[in-house]
Amino acid sequence: MALVVQKYGGTSVGSIEKIKAVAKRAIEYQQEGNQVVVVLSAMAGQTDSLIRLAGEMAPSPDPRELDVLISTGEQVSVALFAMAAKAMGYDACSLLGFQAAIHTDDAYGRARVHDIETERIMMELEKGRIVAVAGFQGLDEHGDITTLGRGGSDTTAVALAAALKADICEIFTDVDGVYTTDPNICPKARKLDVISYDEMLEMASLGAKVLMIRSVEFAKKFGVAIHVRSTFSRERGTMVVAETKDMEKVLVSGVAYNKNEARITIRKLPDRPGIASQIFDPVFKAGIIVDMIIQNTSEDGLTDLTFTVSKSDFHKTMELVSGIAGSIGAEKVMGDEDIAKVSIIGVGMRSHAGVANKMFAALARENINIMMISTSEIKISCIIEEKYTELAVRVLHDAFGLESEARQE
Amino acid sequence: MALVVQKYGGTSVGSIEKIKAVAKRAIEYQQEGNQVVVVLSAMAGQTDSLIRLAGEMAPSPDPRELDVLISTGEQVSVALFAMAAKAMGYDACSLLGFQAAIHTDDAYGRARVHDIETERIMMELEKGRIVAVAGFQGLDEHGDITTLGRGGSDTTAVALAAALKADICEIFTDVDGVYTTDPNICPKARKLDVISYDEMLEMASLGAKVLMIRSVEFAKKFGVAIHVRSTFSRERGTMVVAETKDMEKVLVSGVAYNKNEARITIRKLPDRPGIASQIFDPVFKAGIIVDMIIQNTSEDGLTDLTFTVSKSDFHKTMELVSGIAGSIGAEKVMGDEDIAKVSIIGVGMRSHAGVANKMFAALARENINIMMISTSEIKISCIIEEKYTELAVRVLHDAFGLESEARQE
Repeated sequence: MALVVQKYGGTSVGSIEKIKAVAKRAIEYQQEGNQVVVVLSAMAGQTDSLIRLAGEMAPSPDPRELDVLISTGEQVSVALFAMAAKAMGYDACSLLGFQAAIHTDDAYGRARVHDIETERIMMELEKGRIVAVAGFQGLDEHGDITTLGRGGSDTTAVALAAALKADICEIFTDVDGVYTTDPNICPKARKLDVISYDEMLEMASLGAKVLMIRSVEFAKKFGVAIHVRSTFSRERGTMVVAETKDMEKVLVSGVAYNKNEARITIRKLPDRPGIASQIFDPVFKAGIIVDMIIQNTSEDGLTDLTFTVSKSDFHKTMELVSGIAGSIGAEKVMGDEDIAKVSIIGVGMRSHAGVANKMFAALARENINIMMISTSEIKISCIIEEKYTELAVRVLHDAFGLESEARQE
Repeated sequence: MALVVQKYGGTSVGSIEKIKAVAKRAIEYQQEGNQVVVVLSAMAGQTDSLIRLAGEMAPSPDPRELDVLISTGEQVSVALFAMAAKAMGYDACSLLGFQAAIHTDDAYGRARVHDIETERIMMELEKGRIVAVAGFQGLDEHGDITTLGRGGSDTTAVALAAALKADICEIFTDVDGVYTTDPNICPKARKLDVISYDEMLEMASLGAKVLMIRSVEFAKKFGVAIHVRSTFSRERGTMVVAETKDMEKVLVSGVAYNKNEARITIRKLPDRPGIASQIFDPVFKAGIIVDMIIQNTSEDGLTDLTFTVSKSDFHKTMELVSGIAGSIGAEKVMGDEDIAKVSIIGVGMRSHAGVANKMFAALARENINIMMISTSEIKISCIIEEKYTELAVRVLHDAFGLESEARQE
């Protein structure tokens, strides 16, 4: 008998009929001899409308109370799920964050799971019940409701799978797995059978929105095997697992892109110690996340500094930086919102030279100019003009032969 | 410094603007030097739409899960209230049933409050916060969510007032107090300054929907003074308190009516021991509440039995009773849905004869036929034809001089 944790996202529980379908699926798993814990998100659109309601009440609603408000979305889902299963003649029971004893810190809106007491869940499972746990929510040490941030139900599922020592954590979503790249812009995109935690982390942070980053970190930390698959089909999806020797044979596993960045360049900055910290200190203090940073070698004691932030932070950052740049005697500050980041990801590139060159050459053949480059052990990212994004993705997908499962050397 | 519990019903918190107004009102009370606990219902219409949603999921939804679902309504209200108060610059905090430690039995959908641990609420009050407690909900001994039934927020407020030893429990509603009768059908209806618990109980059970019956029982048991008043004005409403000597000077305090009853008569029933229990046993077992029962003196060993049930139970009761009546040899069963009950209520009638006669005479003057009569210590009820309801109410209101505060002898 296996213990399975299944997470169904907002589109999978978006209507009464869909919740019934999800209940049927969970029941089938149980009938096959498994113990089943389902983690549900709020019905599609619910969280957004609750946030809108809060926005009507106050321009920046109190974070503790916002969590009390938006956690009702998942509460509705699990109650309806358990009703559905019981109406079909099977025993089921909903549990909220405080009942499932999902303990978090008190960072409302983006709380982190500390630990889960599994007694209540195990007791319900042993009664033969399907246990429906409200995703996204937990309880801090004061007994107050917290939420885990966007996509937090993924984290709930993985954390539960770890705490319950589940055999598998299945993430049901509206796509049927993790692809080599976005099939909407590259028809040759191929579903991956397997991907390592680290590759998945890079894919996720680069804009492939299949799994919440934190849930993958959690899975990696506790060795939880994740199966990403479609709610609407029976086909096998993509396994997200620890890295194996075999994986290194593949140089590049996927191509990701992100159109949500903007670039800021400070020209002719006096190149002296402490200047970078002077620039970035107010930016970090404003809670703005800087992605890539590049500083050119200095000439005549002057240098250029370029960095990227998300588009939503662009105007605020330009304001902050323009002020400082003036005061420290830089020539000017330039901003550019029409950029995109394309990246290739693969654990295999660690042990192979020449991957970067192959990427640059492929882009060059299409006359796509590279504005910035950044690399990690298993990733190479280039900033390019936004209008070339789709072309670049297709070109790189071709260059590394991602449409076939054959090795790409 | 007084401790005030204020309950605001669904229409009082029916929109963002109304919740803001309620928050302002609670803040004013606090600024006057009071500690303030507010108990909120779900925004008007919310509970009904959640029940509809459950109905779409299952014809008779699981009661435990239904409580999990519908308790979200009050959760939304208290979160929005606390956001509103905080956005106005005052400290506030929402507490749900499990946080306010409102312990109940596990009769889902109609749970009874056992006890309330007040530590958390007192702690928040001592921090200078306005505490917004979700009405209608509690927690059973298994740690599961329960609800207290329709109008349960009144009970939450009274129970909290009792547990916190509050100085007053204010019930804010969309009417400005308790009236001598329904002002919609009797323009001379007068707002009462004060009414006893027992009179209020009779008024409530007879269809005056100002307060939930159970909350009045609770208030009586623990001696909680209730002030029923309007959310939308500053005027004094009606105090519901323990009976005083003064109250007995008034023979009749109010006239109530109830159009929601139906009458069933069994003709020429063999009059032998055990026959009534044979008739009513299946009715009670089906959970049907019988209100009035009348059995005439027997003639030739045959008698007539008449009783009333609520209109919603009428058809089911007719079916049940017709079966039994046939099997025990009664002549026939007759039903009548076009009836109403009008009642006069007053603690003063205990010590005065002639009140009943005055009532019968007043109805007779208008040629209103009395079909059934039932009396208690402080109430006389008559079943009449439904079409005379409004006329009867006005006639009785006049006959007992209820439009003036003068004594009515």
